[in-house]
Amino acid sequence: MTKTLTARRARLMGPNVPTFYRTPIHIVRGQGVHLWDAGGKQYLDCYNNVPHVGHCHPAVIKAIAGQAAILNTHTRYHHDLVLDYIEQLTARLNHGISQCIMTCTGSEANDIALRMAQAVTGKIGVIATDNTYHGNTAATSALSSRRPPIGGYPSHVRLVPAPDSLRNPDPDGAILAGHIQAAIDDLNAKGIGFSGMMLCPAFANEGIPTVAPGFFAKAEAVIRNAGGLILCDEVQPGFGRMGSHFWGHDWLGLTPDVVTVGKPMANGHPVAAVLARPDVMAAFRNAFGYFNTFGGNPVSAAACLATLQVIDDEALQANAAKTSAYVMDRLRALSHPLLAEVRGVGMFFGAEFVTDADNTPATAFVEDLVEVMVAKGFILNRIGRAGNTLKIRPPLPFNTDHADQLVDALQDALRSTPVPA
Amino acid sequence: MTKTLTARRARLMGPNVPTFYRTPIHIVRGQGVHLWDAGGKQYLDCYNNVPHVGHCHPAVIKAIAGQAAILNTHTRYHHDLVLDYIEQLTARLNHGISQCIMTCTGSEANDIALRMAQAVTGKIGVIATDNTYHGNTAATSALSSRRPPIGGYPSHVRLVPAPDSLRNPDPDGAILAGHIQAAIDDLNAKGIGFSGMMLCPAFANEGIPTVAPGFFAKAEAVIRNAGGLILCDEVQPGFGRMGSHFWGHDWLGLTPDVVTVGKPMANGHPVAAVLARPDVMAAFRNAFGYFNTFGGNPVSAAACLATLQVIDDEALQANAAKTSAYVMDRLRALSHPLLAEVRGVGMFFGAEFVTDADNTPATAFVEDLVEVMVAKGFILNRIGRAGNTLKIRPPLPFNTDHADQLVDALQDALRSTPVPA
Repeated sequence: MTKTLTARRARLMGPNVPTFYRTPIHIVRGQGVHLWDAGGKQYLDCYNNVPHVGHCHPAVIKAIAGQAAILNTHTRYHHDLVLDYIEQLTARLNHGISQCIMTCTGSEANDIALRMAQAVTGKIGVIATDNTYHGNTAATSALSSRRPPIGGYPSHVRLVPAPDSLRNPDPDGAILAGHIQAAIDDLNAKGIGFSGMMLCPAFANEGIPTVAPGFFAKAEAVIRNAGGLILCDEVQPGFGRMGSHFWGHDWLGLTPDVVTVGKPMANGHPVAAVLARPDVMAAFRNAFGYFNTFGGNPVSAAACLATLQVIDDEALQANAAKTSAYVMDRLRALSHPLLAEVRGVGMFFGAEFVTDADNTPATAFVEDLVEVMVAKGFILNRIGRAGNTLKIRPPLPFNTDHADQLVDALQDALRSTPVPA
Repeated sequence: MTKTLTARRARLMGPNVPTFYRTPIHIVRGQGVHLWDAGGKQYLDCYNNVPHVGHCHPAVIKAIAGQAAILNTHTRYHHDLVLDYIEQLTARLNHGISQCIMTCTGSEANDIALRMAQAVTGKIGVIATDNTYHGNTAATSALSSRRPPIGGYPSHVRLVPAPDSLRNPDPDGAILAGHIQAAIDDLNAKGIGFSGMMLCPAFANEGIPTVAPGFFAKAEAVIRNAGGLILCDEVQPGFGRMGSHFWGHDWLGLTPDVVTVGKPMANGHPVAAVLARPDVMAAFRNAFGYFNTFGGNPVSAAACLATLQVIDDEALQANAAKTSAYVMDRLRALSHPLLAEVRGVGMFFGAEFVTDADNTPATAFVEDLVEVMVAKGFILNRIGRAGNTLKIRPPLPFNTDHADQLVDALQDALRSTPVPA
C-alpha cells in the first residue's frame, strides 16, 4: 500500500515532495496525542505542533461544523466573531500590540510582516538567521535557508549565523548582536537600508539552541538603534507552548513590533494572523489596500475562539510548564556516548548527538534513532543544520505519563541503535 | 449595531479595512443563494463566487466535519484523500497538466505559479494586465494594479493595457498582442528577460470585457515565440462557472502551462492549488523544496472532493450555461440612457454605465444603483477601472427564477435611481 501511495504521489505531485521517514507512514486517524496508521498501529505524537490542543479536539470540530452550517463568508461584510477573536487575542499581548490582520497561513502572515517593516521604515533590508524557515512565499522563502530561493537570494536579505549553543556559546548574545550590527552596516553601506529582523524567539528551526531570557537584549538594542523593527514569528512558540509564558517573546524578554501566528491557533484549520501596534498597522494599511478573501471568515474565527477556550479550560499552558520540566529532568538523565547536549524550553526539546570532541554531527546515528523510535510507535524527528538533533515538539496535552513512555522508549532505542564505528 | 461594529473594526483591525457598501451590511446566515443580515433581512446573493455550490452546502459541511473528527494532518505522511482529489481534478484538465501542489490560498498558488515560470525559463520578467488582481503576497501584489505595492513596482513586472471592449475594441486581440510584444521587448532590452504572463481567461477583474474565444491566440503566439509560460488564474472562472466549459482557458481557447485555482474549489474552506505539466512541476520542485504545512491536508481534500461531487450531482455547470443565457437575454432587454454595454460570459455579468458619448464613466450613478439594489435585498457590486460597471457573479445554483428576481429589481432600480444632471 505504501508503495502504491508513493507511486501515486510521484505521479500526481511531482518530484521532491517531502515525506517523513525512510518508509513514509500512512496515518489515517488521530485523537489527542495519538495517531494511528492504516495497519492499526498506534503512535504517540511527540512531534506535531499544529494540532495544538490535541488531534481532532471535539470542541474545535464542533465550532467549525457549527459555524460552517450557519455562515462562511468574508470580512467585507460585518461579523462579530472575527472581532470577538481579535479582542481576546490582543488582550493576551503586551507592548501596545492591539490590532490584527487575519490570514490563512503563517507564510501569508510573515509576508505581510516583512512589508510592515518596509512601510514603517521606508527601507527594504531585512535580517534573519542562516538556519531558519519563515514561510514559502517568494518573499518569505528568501529568508529560509534550507535551499536558496529561485533566482538566488535577493540583495536586500542578510542571513546572520544562527545561535549554536554547542559550538559557539554566546551566553549574553554579544556574538549574535555583532553579526546583526555588521549586517545592518552592510545594508546601509550598499544603500539598501534596514527595515527589521524576523526571528522565532524560541529559535525552533535553528535547532532549539540553549538561550536564556535576556539573550536577545544586545541584539534588540542594535536593531532599535538602527531604526529597525522586530518581527516575532510566534507560529511555533505562541499560545502557551513555552509553558512559563503565553508568548515566546515574553519568555525571551524582547519587545516585538509585529507578532505573527499560524495554524496552531485554530488547531490546524488553515488560519494565521499578523498582530501589530496601531502605528505599524496604519503604516501598512495606508500604504497598501490589503484584503484576504478568507482571512477572518466566521468559520476560521469560530475555530480560533474554540482553540483559545480549550487552552484555558484544559490549563494547557500550565501542563506545558509541568510536562516541560519533567521531560527535561528525564532527558538530562539519559546517557549515551554520542549525546552532546540536551536542550529544551517549554514543549520544545532537542538532543544533539556528535561523533567526536570536535562536535562532528552524528547525522546518520540520529537518522537511525528516529527510525527506531518510529518503529516503536513514537513520532518525532530531526532538526539542526546537519539534522543531528532529535526534535521533540508534542501537542500541548502531552503529559508526564506520555513523557515517561517517550523517554523509556528513547532509553531502549539508544541502547539498540548501533553506534557508527 | 453597525456603528458599534464599525468602531470595533477600526479599533481592532486598523484603518483602510475594506467593507462593501456605504453602510456595511452585517451578515449572520447563509443558505444556497441567500444571505440574511442581523435584522433578519434576506438578500439574494448575486455576487459571491467563493460559496461556489451555494452557501453552507450540507454535503461540503458533512465532509469537513466528518474528516475533521477523524484526522487533520499534513502531506509529510501518506494519505489517500489528497491523491484521490488530485486524480479527479487533473482528469478534468487537458494540455498535459497532470500534477498539483495544494496550498491554502489563491495568493499562495499564484506566488508559486510565478516562480514556476522563473524556474522553467531562468528569467524573471512577468506580464499581467494593468487592471487586475492576482493576490496579496509581496510577489503577487506586484501584479495588482489597484494600489502600487509597498516599495513601488519592481523592475521585472510589466503591466499591459487591459482589454476594454467599450473604449478600445480589439476583436481579434491584435492590440493586446502588440502590447505584450512591446513589454517582452522592453524586458529583454533591459536584460531582465521574460518568464511568462499571468491572466484570468475571463478577465474577471478587468471588468469582464467582451472577448470571444480565440481572442488570446495572437497573444499566445507572441508569448510562445518569446519562450514564456502562460499562467492561467482560474480562481474565478474555473469549476464550471463558464457554463459552456469547465475552465476559462478552454473557453477562451488557449493552452496554459500552469493553472491556479482557489477557494471556490472547496466552497470557501481555505484551500487552493497550482496545477502544471510534469516538466514545469519538476523544474519548480527541483529548484525549490516547497512544502505547505496544511496544503492538501485530509480535511481540505475532503472539502474539495465533496465540492467537485456536488458540481456534478447538481449539474451546476449545465445550470450555469442555462442561467447565463437567460440572464444575458434579460439584461440585453434593459434600457437606460446611461447603459453603454451589457456583457457576460457564463456566470459573470457586467453592465457598464457612462454619462456621455465619450464613454465617461458614470461611477456615481453605479454607486447609487448598487446601494438601491442592496436596499432591495440584492447583493452585487461594481467593477472596472472606474467602478462604473455593475458586477454580477452569483454562486452556481443561481437559476432562472433568481435571475428574474434580480433583473426585475434591477429594472425598478434603474427607474428609481436618479440620473446625474
